[in-house]
Amino acid sequence: MPRPRRTGRSPKSSPSGGPRLAIDLGASKIATALVDRSGRIVVRGDRVEHRNDGFRRVVSLLVRSAQETLRGYPLGAGPVGVSVAAQVDPETGRVVHAPNLRWRDAPLGETLARALGRPVHVLNDGQAATVAEWTRGAGRGARNLACLSLGTGIGGGFVVDGRLAVGATHSAGEVGHLTIVAGGRRCTCRNRGCLEAYAGGWAIAARAREVQRVRVSRGTTIATRSVDSAREVFAAARRGDVRARELVRATERYLAAGIVGLANALNPERIVMGGGLIVGHPRFVTVTASAVRTRCQPSAAGAKIVAGRFGADAPLIGAALWTWIDGP
Amino acid sequence: MPRPRRTGRSPKSSPSGGPRLAIDLGASKIATALVDRSGRIVVRGDRVEHRNDGFRRVVSLLVRSAQETLRGYPLGAGPVGVSVAAQVDPETGRVVHAPNLRWRDAPLGETLARALGRPVHVLNDGQAATVAEWTRGAGRGARNLACLSLGTGIGGGFVVDGRLAVGATHSAGEVGHLTIVAGGRRCTCRNRGCLEAYAGGWAIAARAREVQRVRVSRGTTIATRSVDSAREVFAAARRGDVRARELVRATERYLAAGIVGLANALNPERIVMGGGLIVGHPRFVTVTASAVRTRCQPSAAGAKIVAGRFGADAPLIGAALWTWIDGP
Repeated sequence: MPRPRRTGRSPKSSPSGGPRLAIDLGASKIATALVDRSGRIVVRGDRVEHRNDGFRRVVSLLVRSAQETLRGYPLGAGPVGVSVAAQVDPETGRVVHAPNLRWRDAPLGETLARALGRPVHVLNDGQAATVAEWTRGAGRGARNLACLSLGTGIGGGFVVDGRLAVGATHSAGEVGHLTIVAGGRRCTCRNRGCLEAYAGGWAIAARAREVQRVRVSRGTTIATRSVDSAREVFAAARRGDVRARELVRATERYLAAGIVGLANALNPERIVMGGGLIVGHPRFVTVTASAVRTRCQPSAAGAKIVAGRFGADAPLIGAALWTWIDGP
Repeated sequence: MPRPRRTGRSPKSSPSGGPRLAIDLGASKIATALVDRSGRIVVRGDRVEHRNDGFRRVVSLLVRSAQETLRGYPLGAGPVGVSVAAQVDPETGRVVHAPNLRWRDAPLGETLARALGRPVHVLNDGQAATVAEWTRGAGRGARNLACLSLGTGIGGGFVVDGRLAVGATHSAGEVGHLTIVAGGRRCTCRNRGCLEAYAGGWAIAARAREVQRVRVSRGTTIATRSVDSAREVFAAARRGDVRARELVRATERYLAAGIVGLANALNPERIVMGGGLIVGHPRFVTVTASAVRTRCQPSAAGAKIVAGRFGADAPLIGAALWTWIDGP
């Protein structure tokens, strides 16, 4: 029979209770913090932009940020948690594939461990956010959980029967690439009709630009500037812009349709919706909750849909919490 | 921390190696067999139709079929495995909800155990098929597996990190009700655009009838009779009927789109496609395999897509095999 995997562990107690260093490496930003065992951010480091200019330079920025944040906090040689917007092998700490960073098989854990003189635990950001919400946030106590991180992209993670799902190549939980419209819009991945291609931040902005173009060509409105982010679309909808409002309503329906299907297939007791999009438009949660209640199979319709507790900090907090679960 | 669940077990060895009785209870049929530990059907009982006329009558038919099949095989008091096309609680043996049978919270395991004088293990049919393919069939050795049972409906089951996924209410693996066309065709469940509403046997037949109606109303063809099953559609396509062929091609695309999304989100190393539809149209497997290879995310594109080993017998065989996993 297959051997138990370290990464499949349930959270358990550990003697060490002081705060630990967490790093969240995104496509263009680095966040660092000291996080205690309850999931509280004790010290927040300065947010640093990186220019995505190769493994060495990004790593040296990571090390500098980490050292800044650690300054004045003699944490000893406690482990460091790192979340990355990438396919990661948590067993080896390697970044297998990071399309945004243009890295392949990069020895991130090992390199950071050497530079910082501490053990380093690396996890995918969607799975890290799941760890945060599951152990200390809105998913606490659930044996079966789906956690969605809705931002520029849509990531996620699953807890199945009491364990964080890992998957064959460590990418279980990538709900952004569930097909919700067969043959539909092109995604940034190679598929069409992914949930992310409708409800990811980049897709909301792209769809708004298309609407703008139509309006301009029809001469019905003045498009003063290009829409860069979902946040602008939400703001326009709140100001009463009818087209923006229609687009946001349609996005609510796409997201709900995807999550109804996910709830049917995975049968979680709770689904946590976190990330910047939820902060920007909390109605995504209520619309989805209503759809799950009324449209899921009876066995799945009891799944509770809740907003994440940690917002956009979930991957950072989860990276630290993961060190207590994964670590010695 | 949550306690380990009996149903989350990995297959393990057991001292008892003789064949065991398996029962598969479908919406209109009962199948029974003696199945040995390798997954081989040693004795196949007569297939019995039931009229779906209430718990008592169906159970007495089940008991009669079981006793017929056991006749002449003194298996002692070995356990019995039962698979049911329903939401089942494998802990208690109760059928929580069976829309087809119109049962709710029916004490199937307990009633059968009393009547047969043996321990009875009850499992959902999609999960039972998964157990069969995982332990003795096309999914053997996989730590992460999705198994689809494609028949009149579409059921399934997941193996996540080496364990059969159960879910919050025992219905993990219901891939037929993943949304693949947001706002699309009505399903028999309360959702729209489910995978089953496009690629389930009932849906293929329904879509063929719609095409027929269009053809009749246009006077372009003679619809001599109504299409009752996907099998007739496959046969018409093989005979060269252009409309049937188009419909089958479209179904291949829907199925592939759904499975690409599933592979992205769940990250299995293998996906087994079994059941009557695959027997009737094996191209579903090759088309899906090609789509997964070319359209999944890099982390998921390595998933192997394979035909089931046990065809429509998978739930029956899995019900027996489950007794060795679940049993004392």
